[in-house]
Amino acid sequence: MQAINGDYTGKDILATSQFTTHDIDILFAEANRIRTKIERGEVLTSLQGQIIANLFYEPSTRTASSFVAAAQRLGGGIIPISDVHYSSVSKGENLPDTVRTLEQYADVIILRHSEQGQAGVAAAAAKKPIINAGDGAGEHPTQALLDLYTILRECGRVHDLTVTMVGDLKYGRTVHSLVRLLAMYGVKINYVAPDSLRMPPQLVYELASRGLQQHETTDLESVLADTDVLYVTRVQKERFKSEKEYLAVKGSYILTPEIMTRASRSMIVMHPLPRVDEIDPGVDSDPRAVYFWQVENGLYLRAALLSLVLGKAGARA
Amino acid sequence: MQAINGDYTGKDILATSQFTTHDIDILFAEANRIRTKIERGEVLTSLQGQIIANLFYEPSTRTASSFVAAAQRLGGGIIPISDVHYSSVSKGENLPDTVRTLEQYADVIILRHSEQGQAGVAAAAAKKPIINAGDGAGEHPTQALLDLYTILRECGRVHDLTVTMVGDLKYGRTVHSLVRLLAMYGVKINYVAPDSLRMPPQLVYELASRGLQQHETTDLESVLADTDVLYVTRVQKERFKSEKEYLAVKGSYILTPEIMTRASRSMIVMHPLPRVDEIDPGVDSDPRAVYFWQVENGLYLRAALLSLVLGKAGARA
Amino acid sequence: MQAINGDYTGKDILATSQFTTHDIDILFAEANRIRTKIERGEVLTSLQGQIIANLFYEPSTRTASSFVAAAQRLGGGIIPISDVHYSSVSKGENLPDTVRTLEQYADVIILRHSEQGQAGVAAAAAKKPIINAGDGAGEHPTQALLDLYTILRECGRVHDLTVTMVGDLKYGRTVHSLVRLLAMYGVKINYVAPDSLRMPPQLVYELASRGLQQHETTDLESVLADTDVLYVTRVQKERFKSEKEYLAVKGSYILTPEIMTRASRSMIVMHPLPRVDEIDPGVDSDPRAVYFWQVENGLYLRAALLSLVLGKAGARA
Repeated sequence: MQAINGDYTGKDILATSQFTTHDIDILFAEANRIRTKIERGEVLTSLQGQIIANLFYEPSTRTASSFVAAAQRLGGGIIPISDVHYSSVSKGENLPDTVRTLEQYADVIILRHSEQGQAGVAAAAAKKPIINAGDGAGEHPTQALLDLYTILRECGRVHDLTVTMVGDLKYGRTVHSLVRLLAMYGVKINYVAPDSLRMPPQLVYELASRGLQQHETTDLESVLADTDVLYVTRVQKERFKSEKEYLAVKGSYILTPEIMTRASRSMIVMHPLPRVDEIDPGVDSDPRAVYFWQVENGLYLRAALLSLVLGKAGARA
Repeated sequence: MQAINGDYTGKDILATSQFTTHDIDILFAEANRIRTKIERGEVLTSLQGQIIANLFYEPSTRTASSFVAAAQRLGGGIIPISDVHYSSVSKGENLPDTVRTLEQYADVIILRHSEQGQAGVAAAAAKKPIINAGDGAGEHPTQALLDLYTILRECGRVHDLTVTMVGDLKYGRTVHSLVRLLAMYGVKINYVAPDSLRMPPQLVYELASRGLQQHETTDLESVLADTDVLYVTRVQKERFKSEKEYLAVKGSYILTPEIMTRASRSMIVMHPLPRVDEIDPGVDSDPRAVYFWQVENGLYLRAALLSLVLGKAGARA
Repeated sequence: MQAINGDYTGKDILATSQFTTHDIDILFAEANRIRTKIERGEVLTSLQGQIIANLFYEPSTRTASSFVAAAQRLGGGIIPISDVHYSSVSKGENLPDTVRTLEQYADVIILRHSEQGQAGVAAAAAKKPIINAGDGAGEHPTQALLDLYTILRECGRVHDLTVTMVGDLKYGRTVHSLVRLLAMYGVKINYVAPDSLRMPPQLVYELASRGLQQHETTDLESVLADTDVLYVTRVQKERFKSEKEYLAVKGSYILTPEIMTRASRSMIVMHPLPRVDEIDPGVDSDPRAVYFWQVENGLYLRAALLSLVLGKAGARA
């Protein structure tokens, strides 16, 4: 896996480990630049004539739509392939052949796959850049980057923040990718999860060895007052051994307006969405709820990434 | 529900009741302007940089395609979401959250839903404009508007016309929306339907109280000679209690070249399409058959509506 | 079926028999022109304001994507209809009505259908041009044209070449269309197939009467050394009466690096893709393997065809 090393042009974007804080600065600066121009009503055409292929082996309307919007906001075209299992693409053809075919049409391929490691397989086969939009239990780097971008925009800084992760921390790909990024900044992290859904010990150990301050608890309220960023994820019923076990812990991980009264006035609440019931809709009108701004930030972040990878950043974007 | 009141910018378009005849004049003028330019071969770019989301909770390739074409004719981009029930959008997420997510990417959301009232639910949740593209038994305002636009173009006026509605008038959402619009003009309306598929008495009463002249019959031929606009809709077998009952009335509601010989030479035949067998293909070559022009008019009408709602009408369109 | 006769504008493209070598020269010249400009990084806008409808009654992600990319590379818009059997388009509506509806929105319709002859049915109904993207056992002219274009580009000429077709020659629509085109050039053709999958005798007879030199064998090695173009197609298990029969011949039609050592150094290997196991992946790195370039050539060929049919070739493309 290639390091970005200050130059995105032509690179595959597979995992958060490719990024230094300097690479992230470049990306966020481009995202800000695109945002400003769009907010001013400028018509951007930097990706005119470019084709972005959305190759989705599992459905993710949300992520797919984000890339569709990002490409089109900059004038790019889209090849949408979102029904792979029902289409001729899957007629016995392997991923390398599919990717080698698609890159004849497109300038970059966004790949979503249900199996860990497939983004790497695609990147090895393709000459054109592959952007990993989630590969099973593996990585989802653009989600982690847009989360970090949201923290920076909303809190004004990342260093010295206390970030509290709540919910299913065992299977939450989003959380795993994000903490890896946060470990590059001097943050303190709390993990709040039921016993059966704790952060993988191996990952906690890995991050500790990189100097990240981490604290585990099952009690949200014990860390709430000191939290700057509350990152809530879904606790899925299916993850529990019994309905009884699920019901016993469920209530502890639902954010309500009442709980919000005990949080800091400058705290922000994030969620990768979609939510089910882990954030009460009553929280939505709280100015500290920024989860829909996360979605908006995703648009600018992905537009910036496409521009950089295609060598079109800054130019006329 | 907000009245248009002469200004479409940023408004939700949910129902025909939002429109005055003045609002309709504005819309049709914009549709004519766009048509003229496209017919001259001009490349229109007024929606360049704008993103239109097509959020379809039930399939309607026809309506979806019309908005796709309308947006692209003006240079706009599209986020197509037409398989909601198979996608992550529906993974337990409610409509308000889906809409609040999508409006982070798009400038306007076209919503098709199987349940009456859901367009209003979406509009209440969204900051960006929602255009109702059919919500169950509720409204389908753009279909009614394109029908009215077709009548005006083909007959040169709407006032004083005799419009005859034929077929399933009980369940026909299209008919219900159109007669509400026609009630604003001094027209006379005939309803021709089998007893079990008559216009809802409540709607007839409501329209009568607004001064609309209405006449009900089961016999098409009794009103045909005096008809200026014949609006045919499908009579679905499934609506009848028995096959016998269906077969008994079926023939009375099939338009043939032979029946057309007894109609006025200036009468027009409309149909919302798709048809099955309620209009004999032999009628297609009759110059009075305008149902495919309805489709074309739908393109211009929807392009005009998008332009107006997005505040881009007239400018460079 | 109309002959092209040097002028593509507004013509339906249904079958290879519409083309003379002069028509093909025009098409390939336009494809080369578009390729050169795209390779130079020029942004092409010749199809801006034009809408291309992709009406696919059976899935073919590969062909659909090729047209999507071709249209967008030239600035055109797309109406993608690829799920016809699940959509309202098929709700009892016949193909002529669907096509007459769609041409109100689009400037050209790309049609894929599972039944032979349906492209002709569509063309008879439509005023706008229809491009046949495969109709069952019928024709797939753009595939044959891109194959011919590949041969010309890779070999520098078509005349006097020896082309060897391998695999399922009985059901291979692609092969049937291509040999019809090749018959217009002075080539020699070898057919290598198991007995049960031989070229249809009627077609061999027809081509012989047009002066094409043809030779049939079951033994690839007997003709390999003298072959300039090796065109490999898939041998599907389901085509055989028994698994035993399949296994007996299977090995004879798998191309391996070892077999490639006995081929001419200037031979090229083609395949319409997707392949399953009839070409060993070890062949991919052989410079004689051009099957992924075929895919790329398809993009330019289809972009050229759209430009010509829409009367936009040369202009600003």
